[in-house]
Amino acid sequence: MKHPHATGNESKVKKASRLSQIEPFHVMRIITRAMELQAAGVDIVNLAIGEPDFETPPLIVEAAVRALKASSMRYLPSLGTDELRAAISQWYRHRYGLDISKNRIAVTSGSSAALLLTMGVLVSPGDEILMPDPTYPCNRNFVSAMEGRSTLIPVGPDTDYQLTAELVERHWTERTVGVMIASPSNPTGSLMDADVLREIHQVVQANYGTLIVDEIYHGVTYGEQISSALEFADDVFVINSFSKYFAMTGWRLGWVVLPEAHVDDFEMLAQNLYISSPEVAQRAAVAAFHPETIKACDVNRMHYQEQRDFLLAELRTIGFKIPVDPMGAIYIYADCSKFTKDSFDFCQDLLENAGVAIAPGLDFGANRASEHVRFSYPKAIPVLAEGVRRLKEHLGC
Amino acid sequence: MKHPHATGNESKVKKASRLSQIEPFHVMRIITRAMELQAAGVDIVNLAIGEPDFETPPLIVEAAVRALKASSMRYLPSLGTDELRAAISQWYRHRYGLDISKNRIAVTSGSSAALLLTMGVLVSPGDEILMPDPTYPCNRNFVSAMEGRSTLIPVGPDTDYQLTAELVERHWTERTVGVMIASPSNPTGSLMDADVLREIHQVVQANYGTLIVDEIYHGVTYGEQISSALEFADDVFVINSFSKYFAMTGWRLGWVVLPEAHVDDFEMLAQNLYISSPEVAQRAAVAAFHPETIKACDVNRMHYQEQRDFLLAELRTIGFKIPVDPMGAIYIYADCSKFTKDSFDFCQDLLENAGVAIAPGLDFGANRASEHVRFSYPKAIPVLAEGVRRLKEHLGC
Repeated sequence: MKHPHATGNESKVKKASRLSQIEPFHVMRIITRAMELQAAGVDIVNLAIGEPDFETPPLIVEAAVRALKASSMRYLPSLGTDELRAAISQWYRHRYGLDISKNRIAVTSGSSAALLLTMGVLVSPGDEILMPDPTYPCNRNFVSAMEGRSTLIPVGPDTDYQLTAELVERHWTERTVGVMIASPSNPTGSLMDADVLREIHQVVQANYGTLIVDEIYHGVTYGEQISSALEFADDVFVINSFSKYFAMTGWRLGWVVLPEAHVDDFEMLAQNLYISSPEVAQRAAVAAFHPETIKACDVNRMHYQEQRDFLLAELRTIGFKIPVDPMGAIYIYADCSKFTKDSFDFCQDLLENAGVAIAPGLDFGANRASEHVRFSYPKAIPVLAEGVRRLKEHLGC
Repeated sequence: MKHPHATGNESKVKKASRLSQIEPFHVMRIITRAMELQAAGVDIVNLAIGEPDFETPPLIVEAAVRALKASSMRYLPSLGTDELRAAISQWYRHRYGLDISKNRIAVTSGSSAALLLTMGVLVSPGDEILMPDPTYPCNRNFVSAMEGRSTLIPVGPDTDYQLTAELVERHWTERTVGVMIASPSNPTGSLMDADVLREIHQVVQANYGTLIVDEIYHGVTYGEQISSALEFADDVFVINSFSKYFAMTGWRLGWVVLPEAHVDDFEMLAQNLYISSPEVAQRAAVAAFHPETIKACDVNRMHYQEQRDFLLAELRTIGFKIPVDPMGAIYIYADCSKFTKDSFDFCQDLLENAGVAIAPGLDFGANRASEHVRFSYPKAIPVLAEGVRRLKEHLGC
């Protein structure tokens, strides 16, 4: 057999069709450029990355070090160690007064894995998932990865940037299999009212669909404690993470509470696509629920609240429109239409000429995206103040 | 809006269609039962799990501890830290004499993520990937997850359980987009001859497809050094891992060398589906390439070889047919047709009545799977000897 004329130069590069459905993170261009500028000695106030500014609490780090010294770091059960699943179950009892069996809890390699596996067990090609616009950009890409379609439903200040039962009912089609909501929301920081959540759940249930609730920013809220969808439903997928409240982004550990009927499928898919989650993170995360760690996380939350209060007031003074107070998460989603009709261009200009990095709206959907930007505020107040000073100077106010 | 009659009991549970294409790991039933028996005080010789028996080398663990104490464990670039990508590039120079740009190296959350993302950028729904049968079970499930189809090509001792250019040519169809091979192979431990690999690459190239080569067990070979597909091709996806040679399974870290033309797509998909790989593992893995670590890994390899030599001879004496000497990886794939026509039943019986856990052939495909079992031999010789003693007693020889 000979193929004497076959060379690399002749090959057409074939690419999977899903790639055309998946958008890059535009903010990555901002972040990469910010790093270039920093490397060149330019001082940048970086409010672009959605990440806590705090260290992982010390008891968690100490547990990791102990585990590294004592254990061999092996493959583990695909749904997580018994110890950590039990600790998460206990957390639901302690924090929410809920009795969630550890058998329904799957520990995952970040909530990214929780989202991929959730879509993997729910979405057949062509199936639709409803979600609000704006929303966390990866959500629609997890659906696309599984060959499903996202129906982005524009939401605004009138519904606190959240879906309503009426919106869900109106957009439901024969191909719809589920609804994905987040409370607190990224990028708006808005919460979903418990009654609205309950109504949405009823509509989803009546249509034999599945409700997926992102509770990743639970713990980072600035009012009374937020309720979990698990308080009234056991047929929902509830996604959570150690990244935000517990300040463990780089550890890559999350979890999901599953409906009983999906546990076996989820496990089978997790075995195949992930084998297991990192051992050191799982051993460490048990210490996340220690009272001393919780105390540290709640102190961080107080700082987030101060940071939000400061930046929210300043941005409004400058002329950004923020019609709904963000009541959770670590973001302010601001209408910048007073300054631009092209928020990506605005972000680039702000970075190059004022040294402030923020995220453009078009990462979060198509709904008035060019008139919005996202500020991620977990920074010390003096850093935020310097960012505000630069914004004011740059915008001439 | 009211849906007074909607309750959880009425819901039909909808499941994604891909789930019917994905098979559970049958060996997990064996492993789970083995753990149950162990918990009940039964002594089990466990040769079922594909995992090194050795600790992660100390310099790697020490680097992890240092990183935990010094760093904040944050999100990182989606393709990995510059430091680790450069270290892997340097490894190709040092070990293979190859000049592989770090820009073509993507660090992933285990080779599991490398495989998922590779299929994600290559496979559109309905596309076919050719692979040998027997093969690593997850390979076909990564394809199924992305709505592609695996064409399992039966291979046997006549081709060292590997594909040939002729087999690839014969099974190529209009829907075929790639070929996946592994050398050393899991479960057979066989190597692919460098000339055969080159011929297969030519056929794939002539058909405008993509070759994916699993080199996860590189470093764990028992003869002269094995060559990488990268030695003659820059349009292949080469999957590798820190799990096996570097004994880092539970850390969940792998890598892939990408064709230039796919780097941007791979990065975009990695950003969306994983964000980044665990920081502690990335910081630690840099120490994997330290000469002292390599020395430790090569000592481990000598032990693997002794273990293979011991078990191979014993199994043949017992009456298992092993027509091709496994020359790499950590497995012996044995024809058990002298003892059974149902290898899963055989495995269950062996576990329950002789206290030896091994993997049934049907995890690895459909090709005479019921007449094969896989032994994973990284255990101290006395443990293997006890396993052999039990086998002999159980089989009456």
